[in-house]
Amino acid sequence: MDFENEHQGLIIGRNAVAEALRSGRAIDSLLVAKGERGGSVGKIMAQCREKGIVIKETDIRKLDKLCAGANHQGVAAWAAVHEYSSIEDILANAESKNEAPFVIICDEIEDPHNLGAIIRTADACGAHGIIIPKRRGVALTYAVGKVSAGAVEYVPVARVANLASTIEELKEKGFWIYGADMDGTRWDKQDYSGSVALVVGSEGRGISRLIKEKCDFIVSLPMKGRINSLNASVAAGILMYEIAKNR
Amino acid sequence: MDFENEHQGLIIGRNAVAEALRSGRAIDSLLVAKGERGGSVGKIMAQCREKGIVIKETDIRKLDKLCAGANHQGVAAWAAVHEYSSIEDILANAESKNEAPFVIICDEIEDPHNLGAIIRTADACGAHGIIIPKRRGVALTYAVGKVSAGAVEYVPVARVANLASTIEELKEKGFWIYGADMDGTRWDKQDYSGSVALVVGSEGRGISRLIKEKCDFIVSLPMKGRINSLNASVAAGILMYEIAKNR
Repeated sequence: MDFENEHQGLIIGRNAVAEALRSGRAIDSLLVAKGERGGSVGKIMAQCREKGIVIKETDIRKLDKLCAGANHQGVAAWAAVHEYSSIEDILANAESKNEAPFVIICDEIEDPHNLGAIIRTADACGAHGIIIPKRRGVALTYAVGKVSAGAVEYVPVARVANLASTIEELKEKGFWIYGADMDGTRWDKQDYSGSVALVVGSEGRGISRLIKEKCDFIVSLPMKGRINSLNASVAAGILMYEIAKNR
Repeated sequence: MDFENEHQGLIIGRNAVAEALRSGRAIDSLLVAKGERGGSVGKIMAQCREKGIVIKETDIRKLDKLCAGANHQGVAAWAAVHEYSSIEDILANAESKNEAPFVIICDEIEDPHNLGAIIRTADACGAHGIIIPKRRGVALTYAVGKVSAGAVEYVPVARVANLASTIEELKEKGFWIYGADMDGTRWDKQDYSGSVALVVGSEGRGISRLIKEKCDFIVSLPMKGRINSLNASVAAGILMYEIAKNR
């Protein structure tokens, strides 16, 4: 990936990472060379654990390559392009506009182009926020920010540890959960009134089984051709505009 | 771009390019080092001119970089991932299905991700073909083929020298031309019956003035947020599914 370099959110070396943690900058993940525990590394790891930052043991050669020759001392971190919001922030966003909440749940979207385009479409169609999982799928990286054309500044993105339990919470709050997948109701034959969450699956595998079982409705786009799926951000965009139209 | 390498459609060196021309392989453009005219280069250029292949005088250092050390002898060529079709092929495609023709015109789409995703959506929604300009915008490169998820194999793509006169020809054949731009009719308040061509503009500038003037209707997606446009392939996808729904 040409996205992955130090100018696009990679913080390199023990002092730089410790300083980023001290300043409260949003960090997506900590990369630690395998077996590295000496000096301040243990302290950095403890701080990350406390803040709930994902720690990834990384092959030292991969770290060398990512850091392109800079002296990483066994430690680097991916900064997020924007602070994360909470589910409460997203609901407050809807309430402040006096609108029924409309959120997008991304189940393991991996391509920064797709997440960035989904955030951009969310801004345009008036969705109130995006929910992504903490461990799988792409985070709010600098590449995502760039593709979003600046929409990351305006659309709250919440990152949750467990997507399935988040969906349960939303259901308790009166949300209807719509999953985008094959073999469902035609997308334009559905009523999208009330509090709506649209679940979009990963590029290759669609929505995971566990999450799909939690959806109230499955909505589908007809596929008339030979390829059996659309680009994830295109499919999400078609559904998001259909939902927005019906509100 | 990590897309640009010899494994993805770059043909390197005089013999290889001459052989590709002889075999009738689809070539998007010929790259010739500035000032290079010796040996077989003049003959290769004449053949390209005859076949209507775009010739680009290229800085020798750029050529060195593209060819990554391979001995290019001042000549390289970008192969297309698939043969181009003609407008007639696209119309015949619609006729064979006994459907009113539905085509997408890409006015200077530059990002292979966008053109690839548009071709993929065209396959899914049942559009009969895509028209792109010969000189500006991205061609049917290997990167486009990859993003299309194989849809380049099924959706005919025609490349024309002059988009404006092509639109005139389509109008004479009874087509209605819909341009996707701001300040038009709401996308879902339009009747898309009959022979339809949807014009999608470039990522940065939208539809060019000359082409916009030739459109019968301008259709727009409401922008409720702070960013004033959508990703080109997402906007195209929303409009394409709306058109397909109404047919």
